[in-house]
Amino acid sequence: MSTATRATTPPDAERWRSHVKEEVAHAVADFVAARRADHLGRAPDARVLGDVLTRFVAGGKYVRSAFALAGWSCVAEPTPAAVRAAGSLELLHCFALLQDDVMDCSPLRRGRPAAHVVFAEWHRRERLSGSATRFGESAAVLAGDLCLVWAEQMLRESGVDQAALARVLPRYDRMRSGLAVGQFRDLVNDARRLPTLHDVREVARAKSGDYTVRGPLELGAGLAGAPPALLGALGRYGAAVGEAFQLCDDLLGLFGTPEVTGKPVGDDLRSRKATTLLVLARERADGRARRELTRLDLLDHLTPSDVDRYLDVIAATGAREQAERLIEQRLTEGMTALADAFLPAETRARLVHLAHLCGNRNS
Amino acid sequence: MSTATRATTPPDAERWRSHVKEEVAHAVADFVAARRADHLGRAPDARVLGDVLTRFVAGGKYVRSAFALAGWSCVAEPTPAAVRAAGSLELLHCFALLQDDVMDCSPLRRGRPAAHVVFAEWHRRERLSGSATRFGESAAVLAGDLCLVWAEQMLRESGVDQAALARVLPRYDRMRSGLAVGQFRDLVNDARRLPTLHDVREVARAKSGDYTVRGPLELGAGLAGAPPALLGALGRYGAAVGEAFQLCDDLLGLFGTPEVTGKPVGDDLRSRKATTLLVLARERADGRARRELTRLDLLDHLTPSDVDRYLDVIAATGAREQAERLIEQRLTEGMTALADAFLPAETRARLVHLAHLCGNRNS
Repeated sequence: MSTATRATTPPDAERWRSHVKEEVAHAVADFVAARRADHLGRAPDARVLGDVLTRFVAGGKYVRSAFALAGWSCVAEPTPAAVRAAGSLELLHCFALLQDDVMDCSPLRRGRPAAHVVFAEWHRRERLSGSATRFGESAAVLAGDLCLVWAEQMLRESGVDQAALARVLPRYDRMRSGLAVGQFRDLVNDARRLPTLHDVREVARAKSGDYTVRGPLELGAGLAGAPPALLGALGRYGAAVGEAFQLCDDLLGLFGTPEVTGKPVGDDLRSRKATTLLVLARERADGRARRELTRLDLLDHLTPSDVDRYLDVIAATGAREQAERLIEQRLTEGMTALADAFLPAETRARLVHLAHLCGNRNS
Repeated sequence: MSTATRATTPPDAERWRSHVKEEVAHAVADFVAARRADHLGRAPDARVLGDVLTRFVAGGKYVRSAFALAGWSCVAEPTPAAVRAAGSLELLHCFALLQDDVMDCSPLRRGRPAAHVVFAEWHRRERLSGSATRFGESAAVLAGDLCLVWAEQMLRESGVDQAALARVLPRYDRMRSGLAVGQFRDLVNDARRLPTLHDVREVARAKSGDYTVRGPLELGAGLAGAPPALLGALGRYGAAVGEAFQLCDDLLGLFGTPEVTGKPVGDDLRSRKATTLLVLARERADGRARRELTRLDLLDHLTPSDVDRYLDVIAATGAREQAERLIEQRLTEGMTALADAFLPAETRARLVHLAHLCGNRNS
């Protein structure tokens, strides 16, 4: 647990977080149910698509909508329209997860079969012809497309002030384009033998900083009419906490337990993800450790004992502790940015609590 | 060439068509260039993404934007804002093509390597690790995502009246959701051994009728402020002409020359597409022809002589002539719908011309 945030998280903030999570989950479920009715029609084959989407959007931690509502609450108490606008970010996130799992060949999501696997199983059960795997991947991409379309529709129809909406839409466009471009650059980094720390951190910043923390926060605050100085402080907080979130993600991707990550141990190694942690380890490794990392990098397939060995070598470089120190630094930077902002005490406590959750995802 | 439309296409309509195609192409190219600058950034790796998108959007026949502008011109002369709004439909179409080519494993688009093939070649040239094919497919899906986001942004920022825009957006949402759902149902039909004519035509109607002809037409007319009676007539015209377009597509997919289709002969057979024509052939086939079709259906791989044989059997059932008669009927229905509408002579000529192009794509 991070010392920067440990002492400052009152139970009120946690109650608020649980409360808005529940409200957002309801709003998203209602919206998806309405879209199933008017976009998916009554064709029996479209039913599986609706079923998978309904289940998929119900999972998750609702981090992005929480930041959007925290941003909104810097200016005013969130309205039902604010909850719907925030909920739209969860659909945007579902779009990203559905397609990322296809591209990364991830069989699991949140400890259960990923959507493409569920679609492939349906293909087999229906005894359809052709490749079930291929069908599952295409279907998951299309389910992602629907989430991308529905996200924008949910935001637009949320009931927020139209002038405010028009103000934040360029930000929204940058965020969703950045998501696709970031994923593309991620694929390129994963496929490069040795991407630089600069490359990897730039993409991590673009993907997570912008879309997980900073983007939702600025979107919520902007919709509620936050003045430029407040937006500036929230932007600095968001950039720092977003990077802590991504670093924590990278740590979990290597060292997290399946109970926390919903994925097998060392999943990022097996899928050859170019994470900050791996690049840090390569930079810190001495000659022998570096040769061992290179040997493991070049293996076509990693056995469980290769994964163990890989993790041992990475841990021995001290990359793990360095990542933990970086997380701590980023959280401290986030808190400093908040200190500059004029905020109600309650809202400040919410932002501190959310930062804490981003940097301490094992707890 | 169809007799329903042959006599009624004056050169003015063709000049108009060429003129708007050029205007739309410029508007789309300008918009994409601006998005490259503000969304793709200066990262060297994102460059290939921008290059592929720039080339991709420049191709194509610009059918959807022509229908949108024809719809608009039922009410008023199209403005530059109308051209941009119409152009957004070309980006939506690019989204569909980029992802469909991945899902259908189509190596060619418009006679040139499909986007996923170009990305895969780049992966090889850059000597990246992992599967180039897989990388190419993921990159093309992401390029499609960008087109989907940019399409909505281009429509929203086109400069059309905001109240009119708000009126047509539910229609737009139905159209783009329908595109993803239609593609999903298409995949299911392709994977069923024997989808019914009803299934295949319902999907064809949803995909093409709605998104190629009727949707763009109603969108353009709606944005310009068309009254309900006119929208009704255009809807009937659009549904009929859209079906003619799809039937013609199915004919070309089997019997079209590579010069016209940009794809090898019999491409729909090789990719096991469930087209109206194939279902018609199965329904019309006698016992022997039906057994032969079933035998060919079940082959894992079709040699060029299998494709020839397949086409011969289909042709012998008379399915081709039936499809041609159906196209003729639909075009006549479209003309009848127009006859009911109160329209300027010039606009009527444009709609007749476009119907003609949809039903006679070899000419």
